[in-house]
Amino acid sequence: MANIAFIGLGNMGGPMAANLIQSGHKVTVFDLSESAMSTLVEQGAQQANTAADAVKHADVVVSMLPAGKHVESLYLDDSNGLKHVMGAGTLVIDSSTIDSATAQRVGKYLNAAGFGFVDAPVSGGVAGAAAGTLTFIVGGCHNHFEQAKPILENMGKNIFHAGEVGAGQVAKICNNMLLSVLMAGTSEALQLAIDNGLDPAVMSDIMLQSSGRNWTLELYNPCPDVMPNVPSSNDYKGGFMVDLMRKDLGLAMETSLQSQSTTPMGALAQSLFSFHSANGHGQKDFSSIFEMFSKNKS
Amino acid sequence: MANIAFIGLGNMGGPMAANLIQSGHKVTVFDLSESAMSTLVEQGAQQANTAADAVKHADVVVSMLPAGKHVESLYLDDSNGLKHVMGAGTLVIDSSTIDSATAQRVGKYLNAAGFGFVDAPVSGGVAGAAAGTLTFIVGGCHNHFEQAKPILENMGKNIFHAGEVGAGQVAKICNNMLLSVLMAGTSEALQLAIDNGLDPAVMSDIMLQSSGRNWTLELYNPCPDVMPNVPSSNDYKGGFMVDLMRKDLGLAMETSLQSQSTTPMGALAQSLFSFHSANGHGQKDFSSIFEMFSKNKS
Amino acid sequence: MANIAFIGLGNMGGPMAANLIQSGHKVTVFDLSESAMSTLVEQGAQQANTAADAVKHADVVVSMLPAGKHVESLYLDDSNGLKHVMGAGTLVIDSSTIDSATAQRVGKYLNAAGFGFVDAPVSGGVAGAAAGTLTFIVGGCHNHFEQAKPILENMGKNIFHAGEVGAGQVAKICNNMLLSVLMAGTSEALQLAIDNGLDPAVMSDIMLQSSGRNWTLELYNPCPDVMPNVPSSNDYKGGFMVDLMRKDLGLAMETSLQSQSTTPMGALAQSLFSFHSANGHGQKDFSSIFEMFSKNKS
Amino acid sequence: MANIAFIGLGNMGGPMAANLIQSGHKVTVFDLSESAMSTLVEQGAQQANTAADAVKHADVVVSMLPAGKHVESLYLDDSNGLKHVMGAGTLVIDSSTIDSATAQRVGKYLNAAGFGFVDAPVSGGVAGAAAGTLTFIVGGCHNHFEQAKPILENMGKNIFHAGEVGAGQVAKICNNMLLSVLMAGTSEALQLAIDNGLDPAVMSDIMLQSSGRNWTLELYNPCPDVMPNVPSSNDYKGGFMVDLMRKDLGLAMETSLQSQSTTPMGALAQSLFSFHSANGHGQKDFSSIFEMFSKNKS
Repeated sequence: MANIAFIGLGNMGGPMAANLIQSGHKVTVFDLSESAMSTLVEQGAQQANTAADAVKHADVVVSMLPAGKHVESLYLDDSNGLKHVMGAGTLVIDSSTIDSATAQRVGKYLNAAGFGFVDAPVSGGVAGAAAGTLTFIVGGCHNHFEQAKPILENMGKNIFHAGEVGAGQVAKICNNMLLSVLMAGTSEALQLAIDNGLDPAVMSDIMLQSSGRNWTLELYNPCPDVMPNVPSSNDYKGGFMVDLMRKDLGLAMETSLQSQSTTPMGALAQSLFSFHSANGHGQKDFSSIFEMFSKNKS
Repeated sequence: MANIAFIGLGNMGGPMAANLIQSGHKVTVFDLSESAMSTLVEQGAQQANTAADAVKHADVVVSMLPAGKHVESLYLDDSNGLKHVMGAGTLVIDSSTIDSATAQRVGKYLNAAGFGFVDAPVSGGVAGAAAGTLTFIVGGCHNHFEQAKPILENMGKNIFHAGEVGAGQVAKICNNMLLSVLMAGTSEALQLAIDNGLDPAVMSDIMLQSSGRNWTLELYNPCPDVMPNVPSSNDYKGGFMVDLMRKDLGLAMETSLQSQSTTPMGALAQSLFSFHSANGHGQKDFSSIFEMFSKNKS
Repeated sequence: MANIAFIGLGNMGGPMAANLIQSGHKVTVFDLSESAMSTLVEQGAQQANTAADAVKHADVVVSMLPAGKHVESLYLDDSNGLKHVMGAGTLVIDSSTIDSATAQRVGKYLNAAGFGFVDAPVSGGVAGAAAGTLTFIVGGCHNHFEQAKPILENMGKNIFHAGEVGAGQVAKICNNMLLSVLMAGTSEALQLAIDNGLDPAVMSDIMLQSSGRNWTLELYNPCPDVMPNVPSSNDYKGGFMVDLMRKDLGLAMETSLQSQSTTPMGALAQSLFSFHSANGHGQKDFSSIFEMFSKNKS
Repeated sequence: MANIAFIGLGNMGGPMAANLIQSGHKVTVFDLSESAMSTLVEQGAQQANTAADAVKHADVVVSMLPAGKHVESLYLDDSNGLKHVMGAGTLVIDSSTIDSATAQRVGKYLNAAGFGFVDAPVSGGVAGAAAGTLTFIVGGCHNHFEQAKPILENMGKNIFHAGEVGAGQVAKICNNMLLSVLMAGTSEALQLAIDNGLDPAVMSDIMLQSSGRNWTLELYNPCPDVMPNVPSSNDYKGGFMVDLMRKDLGLAMETSLQSQSTTPMGALAQSLFSFHSANGHGQKDFSSIFEMFSKNKS
């Protein structure tokens, strides 16, 4: 069992840290919120006064923060960065979803300074974090991936090795950009069928068995009442929020600009989710993009 | 066994008619091309001098023509339309891919005149036509669908009932519009990953097991050499031509305009396939849209 | 002065016919609405009981109808079409905005039958119709254009000759497709500036004097309170309705599909105006597309 | 007359510095290229060995560099930044086209340290730089703008005050984003007209006098041989390169992401120029986007 420092105990980080405790690791936590720390302490965590205190005796540091600037500051800050206090050979697992350029900058610096590093963004949402069924998409060298894997398996069930440092972030946003395209494209195809008199359940079934098949039709149909137990059949509550998809699409667009790629379908999906959020639906599940197409149609 | 008239013996119609013969039906064929008819006669068909002659004693008429105007003219022409010569109760199966408005107009007219009618466009391509493994997406009333089904099963293996007359055409173009979005979206996601240093095979594998999963990643990866035995690994030869996808997207856009639907993802895919065709790639497999994104990247 | 039959007395046709009367022509009117005819009779028109009656002694027939099917039926209907009753050499001026394919079909038929024909769609709206300041974009041969011109000058001030029969319709929808792109593009550029702290009046002024200059900035700024006496400064009332722009964009998309052109910017604008209309803004001026971008931004 | 340091003597910076010399200022230049400096020395400049040397006795510093990172490093670098050596009250005019976030960061820092600062990106190209007819779009406080104006008037003829620090960059990329939309939209409208048999010169003339009017039709028609002395009539040589428009569109997209704006028309134009560049046309004038639409049409 390992000595693990866990930095960032939000909606995702909290239950992830809890699963590490349950797996028998010694977990020291730090968060700016006292109450977030208290919850974990009740479940068996040690509480640290600063991030630096948390990592002092850690074999592994796991971080779960909102954006690249927080991650960069946490590890590399000139005065307070953890680079000054982590023990030689500490393995850093950053599970934040951030831009890959920052992940690479942080990872390369830490590697050069003698630390292990993997970027390991997750998918699966709050429910997956609680159930320990997250998917981790990991970037880093073979050795660091192998070191991180058993730790990640305490928090998730699918652990992918995408490539070198930064590749975890790239793979996640490529997947999520494609997901946004699948969701918008499936929504408009279903509504076109409905507008022409077809039953969305019949249309969904035909496409599921044809070349239109995709994850949204299999598990997450955006049209209300086609599938039970999905957000579309529950007023688009729960699931993966529009504004989180919008964040990921923003990262995808940034990445695309930096690599001079051309991503028109992703850019259009980004605009659609952006309009949808601006119309007041940012807190709904992202399958609610269906409503943009079905509006005033009934 | 039925008396079947088969009108239109092109790349698709020829092998479809052959499969009906092989199933034991008495098949009378008509096509403007003598040589197309000769090929079928060698396989056991009767040859007719005109479409009208072909249908005179038919229980079932199957047509496979290029566009709505041909279908409308074949059945409803004031002077030569088959409506004047088909026997009462003849079942018409139109397997052409045409606009649903025409399908509805023809179907409603024929129904009112005492004929059976289903629109039954196919997917599966020339290979599926030859192998008898086509998918038929059928529009028509319950009775006509049940009558048509055993005939269609001699030519295909998946027979879907999409709804009333015209619904077969609508369902096909909705599926194919979505397919074009999946193909373009998957292509740009893969290339974005490649541009950022990832291996397309690894990226494909991760998305296949994640929420980016779709038919193109399962069976038809557009990136060369990720998957064996697909067009992308064979210089984009064979498969489903860009110009055929472009035709289907044109039908989808027409349908969308008529029903006042909003289909931005399909419209963008239509523009992309249109640019790709204008660049001289109309005869390649449609997964070659990947090349628009990968151009000058290696 | 000419004997003119005027068919179709809607919001546009009514004041156009009135201007012909005021110019001294003898005008016989027909419309399905009795009250529309009464209004014109008060202004000096003769009233006819049928379209056929209206055109019997006419040198010139002007029609102003909603869609291609009405125009085709009016002139070419097998039993009631005006082709059966117009005198040899009658000049037909169709000012309806319809698809160019229908305009060509009607025009070629009438020409072959010995009638003159120009398609002459208008821009300028109800206000321009009343003031006699419409723009006419005319398709037809040189002679017919020259014959039509003095008549059109009684109703408008800019009379363009776009080319052969059908070219008037093509030119109008090309112009209006571009206008929709200018309006959407200008709106999003202005809002991007506002979102980054700039004053929209300053930004408009800079672009007006730079390479972003366009008709919308000159005469029709979409941002409220930058320009007086435009719809954006009057709650987007008056002007050119979203749903009329949507109709024109539908015609543009049909034309583009028929000529196998690629029009991605127009297609995107068509989707944006379609979303905007579906959100309940179809009756507002089309510059209200600005609100899609400014929503929830203040 | 002022003591001016000029940093960055590329295609634009060189002739701009020359015009300052011609106006009678004492100009000290610095560039990494010896030959670029020699050219200016021949025209009367003093040559400095380092940027720091150049600015020591300057009243005004003008910089013209490729990207934000160069500007930030030039002024703010911890060890070598000009902030360490400029005299109190020096006015900094940064004419580079960079992201507005960097412009704001640099400007705010310099202001707080007691220096004047305006961001003053230009348009007008190499020809305008040589002729002294550039347009400057300036961000900064009123006082700094007034101080900078007479200097800028020695290099250009239109000097706009867009707003506070950073507003010059924002206004420039908003204008250029709109310009890209005008150019792509005008190109596709012209080609749609051509595909339907119209003469592009006639169509251009009609739109110029109608609501499709815009800068590209007035001064820069993208269709070959409609207008003399524009790049489209000279094999798309000269003018404003596709890859420079692509750079500006990249800045526009970054700005839009940061302000959570929605810019679908700009995003689509960005994809079109990106495809066009990837097809090998990055060095052509940006009006060559017309060729994407006209390809294989003749």
